[in-house]
Amino acid sequence: MAERIESSVQNLWQEVRELSLGTPPHIDHLPTPPTPLQFLRHYVTPNKPCLISAAVPHWPALSLWRSAAYLRTTLSTTSVSLHLTPTGKADSLAPHPTSPSALCFASAHVQKLPFPEALDSVLASGEEKTVAYLQQQNDCFRSEYGALAGDCEEHIPWATEALGCSPEAVNLWVGNHFSETSFHKDQYENLYVVITGEKRFLLLPPTDVHRMYIREYPAAQYCYDQDSGEFTLELEDPVAYVPWCSVDPYPLPEEKQREVEKFPLYFNGPKPFEVTVKAGEMLYLPSMWFHHVLQSPDETGLTIAINYWYDMQFDIKYAYFNFLQSIPHSLSSDLGWCETRNVESSRNRSFYNSGDESDIIVSQAVGDTRDNEEQPENMSQD
Amino acid sequence: MAERIESSVQNLWQEVRELSLGTPPHIDHLPTPPTPLQFLRHYVTPNKPCLISAAVPHWPALSLWRSAAYLRTTLSTTSVSLHLTPTGKADSLAPHPTSPSALCFASAHVQKLPFPEALDSVLASGEEKTVAYLQQQNDCFRSEYGALAGDCEEHIPWATEALGCSPEAVNLWVGNHFSETSFHKDQYENLYVVITGEKRFLLLPPTDVHRMYIREYPAAQYCYDQDSGEFTLELEDPVAYVPWCSVDPYPLPEEKQREVEKFPLYFNGPKPFEVTVKAGEMLYLPSMWFHHVLQSPDETGLTIAINYWYDMQFDIKYAYFNFLQSIPHSLSSDLGWCETRNVESSRNRSFYNSGDESDIIVSQAVGDTRDNEEQPENMSQD
Repeated sequence: MAERIESSVQNLWQEVRELSLGTPPHIDHLPTPPTPLQFLRHYVTPNKPCLISAAVPHWPALSLWRSAAYLRTTLSTTSVSLHLTPTGKADSLAPHPTSPSALCFASAHVQKLPFPEALDSVLASGEEKTVAYLQQQNDCFRSEYGALAGDCEEHIPWATEALGCSPEAVNLWVGNHFSETSFHKDQYENLYVVITGEKRFLLLPPTDVHRMYIREYPAAQYCYDQDSGEFTLELEDPVAYVPWCSVDPYPLPEEKQREVEKFPLYFNGPKPFEVTVKAGEMLYLPSMWFHHVLQSPDETGLTIAINYWYDMQFDIKYAYFNFLQSIPHSLSSDLGWCETRNVESSRNRSFYNSGDESDIIVSQAVGDTRDNEEQPENMSQD
Repeated sequence: MAERIESSVQNLWQEVRELSLGTPPHIDHLPTPPTPLQFLRHYVTPNKPCLISAAVPHWPALSLWRSAAYLRTTLSTTSVSLHLTPTGKADSLAPHPTSPSALCFASAHVQKLPFPEALDSVLASGEEKTVAYLQQQNDCFRSEYGALAGDCEEHIPWATEALGCSPEAVNLWVGNHFSETSFHKDQYENLYVVITGEKRFLLLPPTDVHRMYIREYPAAQYCYDQDSGEFTLELEDPVAYVPWCSVDPYPLPEEKQREVEKFPLYFNGPKPFEVTVKAGEMLYLPSMWFHHVLQSPDETGLTIAINYWYDMQFDIKYAYFNFLQSIPHSLSSDLGWCETRNVESSRNRSFYNSGDESDIIVSQAVGDTRDNEEQPENMSQD
């Protein structure tokens, strides 16, 4: 019986690729945006990504934002949120501060400071022991970066018409190749536009959930000491647990073998889809797809991107996903895993502002009584 | 572990209802047709049925087909397919002809004869020991009933625009309350318009698949002896097996208790959605939904309906369905059931013309070598 379920799950990985993504499985590459009907019919309904080349040719941002001087001038008096980490990996797994053989879920240290100063930090990333990334997933483009509003569109017109709503959040991301986003998924339809530099996405369909080895990790936060330039990683108090993907797709060579043994379903299963999004291009990243992101800057030293999060439909696909997630891949080996699923399934979408799956789920088991208002509004980084 | 899977499956039944169908779960009732975008976004994408009131107010059929004289005149020289059964139940389970404690899958006896004569048979149904139903699910409206083409539309314009294709088949159904359609599902997006009389649908989402107790039944066909007016039921030779829903939602009172014990997941689980489609109304019956249909005629003595089958997308939802179907509801009690699933999952969509799930699957296990061309093109009746 265990073998039956294991083989059913593996058939599903294969069937999604064959049915939705073609032979050989691939991500569609469109020269120009689809019509609203085409977008709904061919991409949103079947939950299929696509890359669009000439996505926003008319946006002033494409030329203006290649000038740091323009950005500094336009945002000279603006205070923005800067995320600081020692490694470039925030909202990611890190050695547990008190028991180093274990892992925790580490969030960045967030500083509010004037944009020109924040930009200097991003450009200096890696020179010192600090990686700075300008991002804030709370609709920051429309709040912190309002002065740049005229350089882009407020929404993606054909997507707005297809989905029947305006974006729930519009986020700006200014970084360089030092910042990396670990595997996660979002409960949003995501339209992701790169303005300068490139972003390299690894993509896996929601049906591959068992391959991500989602586990509960204690939440921690980096604290940055301005004087010493050193980070400390502090567990949240009281303890909160975050369900997060365990897989790092790019382990160090000396750790590769160990990682393959720990996560065989990921490393020995179908390869993730790899999509490079260049300046001027847009990725449609469907809701619930797992994604990992690397970025590389252009000659200005920056990778700038903006993304539009539209509410997803919580429909039969979502119900099927929850069902799949509740079924262990193997009745024997995954027993521990499925025991922890109950915590994640206690998700309450209205609990946090972002509605993101990466929301911290406070474990009731440890008697946490923290006020909801104190929760971070967002957790994922890309 | 068995309990875990059982409860996961039952959660899925509940979650689909809560997420897609509202609280309390219900079928949307629209006064007029949706736009193509609304149809895709709110119904096709989430795989949700809807009933549309003033669906086709401009169709001449709505008034013309209330006159049997008009139909007889227009189709006076047309030869049509008449389905004959002793009970009104075709493409349905019946006692096995040689081992009466078992069941088989019985198809109607099909006669080709002039429309006026065929109509007389339908109108006389029940008076003798014969129930006649005018139907043929091979696009019969555009072939056999071409003379009526001007009375309806060739397609449903807003659905064609939404789905991006023309109907694969358009079928006409002329019967009365003696004909009943047993539970089944179709691999089509179905737009079902009632012209005269009423049809009462029982609907269950695809996620309820375990509740239908789909089993393999040997295929049989009624043979009608014109002289004696008697039917015999003959097994197909060589034997073929049809996966079919085992549940009769309206058992005789004296059999009710036994049926509840045989099919507890159906009778003790969430009630099916009940939708009555009246003359002039249209039901959007999404692909893969299980449906059972009763009909009642108006004062003309006939129930006339026409339905448009559009190709469905074989996408992530379909892959999830196959996965769900491959997981036994209970690891102990459903073992026998899941052993037979392998036969159904050998489906090959291009194997038959109709592409319908109800296609006979020839069991290779019994060494059947029948020529594919001899397979019936369609099996379900509604």
